[in-house]
Amino acid sequence: MSRLTHLDETGAARMVNVSDKDATKRTATARGTITLSAEALEAVRSGSAKKGDVLAVARVAGIMAAKQTPALIPLCHALALSSASVDFELGDGDITATATVTCTGPTGVEMEALTAVSVALLTIYDMVKAVDRTMVIGQIRVLDKSGGKSGDWSAA
Amino acid sequence: MSRLTHLDETGAARMVNVSDKDATKRTATARGTITLSAEALEAVRSGSAKKGDVLAVARVAGIMAAKQTPALIPLCHALALSSASVDFELGDGDITATATVTCTGPTGVEMEALTAVSVALLTIYDMVKAVDRTMVIGQIRVLDKSGGKSGDWSAA
Amino acid sequence: MSRLTHLDETGAARMVNVSDKDATKRTATARGTITLSAEALEAVRSGSAKKGDVLAVARVAGIMAAKQTPALIPLCHALALSSASVDFELGDGDITATATVTCTGPTGVEMEALTAVSVALLTIYDMVKAVDRTMVIGQIRVLDKSGGKSGDWSAA
Amino acid sequence: MSRLTHLDETGAARMVNVSDKDATKRTATARGTITLSAEALEAVRSGSAKKGDVLAVARVAGIMAAKQTPALIPLCHALALSSASVDFELGDGDITATATVTCTGPTGVEMEALTAVSVALLTIYDMVKAVDRTMVIGQIRVLDKSGGKSGDWSAA
Amino acid sequence: MSRLTHLDETGAARMVNVSDKDATKRTATARGTITLSAEALEAVRSGSAKKGDVLAVARVAGIMAAKQTPALIPLCHALALSSASVDFELGDGDITATATVTCTGPTGVEMEALTAVSVALLTIYDMVKAVDRTMVIGQIRVLDKSGGKSGDWSAA
Amino acid sequence: MSRLTHLDETGAARMVNVSDKDATKRTATARGTITLSAEALEAVRSGSAKKGDVLAVARVAGIMAAKQTPALIPLCHALALSSASVDFELGDGDITATATVTCTGPTGVEMEALTAVSVALLTIYDMVKAVDRTMVIGQIRVLDKSGGKSGDWSAA
Repeated sequence: MSRLTHLDETGAARMVNVSDKDATKRTATARGTITLSAEALEAVRSGSAKKGDVLAVARVAGIMAAKQTPALIPLCHALALSSASVDFELGDGDITATATVTCTGPTGVEMEALTAVSVALLTIYDMVKAVDRTMVIGQIRVLDKSGGKSGDWSAA
Repeated sequence: MSRLTHLDETGAARMVNVSDKDATKRTATARGTITLSAEALEAVRSGSAKKGDVLAVARVAGIMAAKQTPALIPLCHALALSSASVDFELGDGDITATATVTCTGPTGVEMEALTAVSVALLTIYDMVKAVDRTMVIGQIRVLDKSGGKSGDWSAA
Repeated sequence: MSRLTHLDETGAARMVNVSDKDATKRTATARGTITLSAEALEAVRSGSAKKGDVLAVARVAGIMAAKQTPALIPLCHALALSSASVDFELGDGDITATATVTCTGPTGVEMEALTAVSVALLTIYDMVKAVDRTMVIGQIRVLDKSGGKSGDWSAA
Repeated sequence: MSRLTHLDETGAARMVNVSDKDATKRTATARGTITLSAEALEAVRSGSAKKGDVLAVARVAGIMAAKQTPALIPLCHALALSSASVDFELGDGDITATATVTCTGPTGVEMEALTAVSVALLTIYDMVKAVDRTMVIGQIRVLDKSGGKSGDWSAA
Repeated sequence: MSRLTHLDETGAARMVNVSDKDATKRTATARGTITLSAEALEAVRSGSAKKGDVLAVARVAGIMAAKQTPALIPLCHALALSSASVDFELGDGDITATATVTCTGPTGVEMEALTAVSVALLTIYDMVKAVDRTMVIGQIRVLDKSGGKSGDWSAA
Repeated sequence: MSRLTHLDETGAARMVNVSDKDATKRTATARGTITLSAEALEAVRSGSAKKGDVLAVARVAGIMAAKQTPALIPLCHALALSSASVDFELGDGDITATATVTCTGPTGVEMEALTAVSVALLTIYDMVKAVDRTMVIGQIRVLDKSGGKSGDWSAA
């Protein structure tokens, strides 16, 4: 049976010991999507046209959340992030957020990228919910990661 | 064109003024899902059988995140939550998280419920990612809410 | 000699007891300025022209800092803010930030408004410091406040 | 035109990538001033004579804020600070706060020193505001910094 | 068998629902002790004589921790504290910390008082540990509480 | 007289400068105990039998608190923890919590281990206090530490 590294031999949760892992350059990219009504999308777009504030606020929220990841995810190690960015693409009925995070450290930064995407999309939800109550956030996953012993990986 | 209440007339972001809204009892329920491999699901289940730690950790993370919502979502009001709970259902190839949050206050608690669900699912992801790199978090949405001027609402 | 209410009779620090003060509507407006070079100001302005991001980021930072005030200022009471906004005016060699915060509570919100202004200006400093090392932040003060037993007050 | 490194080519905000910068010893000193009435200054001074609590509280607040800088300033990198100190000088109608911060890391610590000074002065404001409503915080700037590729620098 | 209110009928953790409890005035006092060597105690005392900084820092840390209680204790409700204070008594081989916290709210403030005591004593430990490695923190308990349906209570 | 390193020559508090200390592997183990009534202990035990939630929640709280140590203890350095774990032993009238923390860094991790123990025990207190008002938390101390210039140490 596969072992979850965050559980010890008795099944108790713990932060996995990374003290013997080398600090290497790590990158992770994650992506997610919020589906919203035409009216809501137009509200974001026209707000964008003026001052870009919905997406600017969501971008800042995502970047700040990346830095708060170890305070949110109980067994996640604190890492000094080298960079973090969040980009948005407005589709036909949805907005896609993509976050890229890098660090030099002993563990990967998938959780930071996933957290940035999640909070950025939640922030869009918060700012648009007066217009559309039926939004759905989904398709949050890791696109690719590099660095570390397990090597590079892409979602194919 | 529909107006986003979080933007002022110049398009600048702001916390909406709720000082004239009555403090009423509010409830919101949100739900989301993580899809994972049979091997990963079995790892959670057998961990569950022993000490329930994966889901116990995710539950705590979700509840604590609900309380941190105004620190994560930039324009969200701080609310003194009356209660918060997170439940899980193990499906065939996925785990569903459902969060219910209540408060007596001037604004709704959808964002708190959505944040609890998101962070609970991210925590499962973190604890299982050594076993399955292809998990996807999705279908995060509000199921129903009650209280406030706009009245009760269900996702149908 | 005037007594500082945050010190008890032995001179020890404490959070002042506000349990006998009525919860009333409170407002405070604070303002501050950052002086910067023509080149730095132009960088902000042209960044503004494109996507408004320097000021948008500073605005979000200020609003989020307002909510974190009791975690930063040791003897400050936690208040559930009703609203918070930060506005900027680009002058000839400086940028002025003005923050307005409201709540219904037992104490005033000057510290929240002052903290919002301070962190908004620090954020501009951070984003522009590669261009100008000689910026100075100053003139941070309360413009006016209303509500509470001591009544309305303006800086004249 | 000068480029702001915190904006990408489209003007979107991001944390600048520092993964190729060497970790070197860094120091920064920042300073700022609060002007206050004779009565307020005397209240601080006599509180000081007894137990030093106003300045002791402000010093602790400043040091703790230095550690919170990346949680407050959206695009600021997290750094493991090697040291932080805040000192005060009581003048004739004002109090000057000076903060010195050091770290071994890939970016400078100006923002940490400036944040320490700002929060220390805000804390004095909070503790004295019952005595003087007209205080002004100002002259917040970097005095000197050392370390990193750009070398040593003093405000002259 | 007695039921723990923080567990639901299936044994899962949750924040207890307090939405039907009245907001009343609440007070709690907690106390704890750190035992330390004569040398360590003298170091605190003489530091005290000069500027009182060990106990002043510990006092601030305790008060700030009281406000962070719901972020530390997973199932604890957020409460807007009306006051918080921490006092110390230097004994013969120990220091006793006593914290008193008040609020007007639907649940008691024991946890806030206990957290203030714990963090104040941990702060003393941190500042003195270079002098004494054998300190022990203990006797942390609630002395008395008042307010709420269960009425007043003293530790006898 | 012994000097407290957290006070400068004037007695003012500061974060000690560790920039000249080598980053070495560090470990610390701390322990503490909560005494509780037979009824309360049985409640924990039977909750444990079902889903283990009291101790699971306390374990998560302790691990998360270890990561928050520098935000709680004013003069404590931020360290990137390599691992953290908390274990419990149910005795006859008490529960003992033991925390082990490791890092590679310039200072030790005693405070992180002590903070994990303290918050884990406070969390048990919070979840059981409806059943037993007379619990006492005590015997919190460091058992052993290793790494750093001062070498290995055990409490004997």
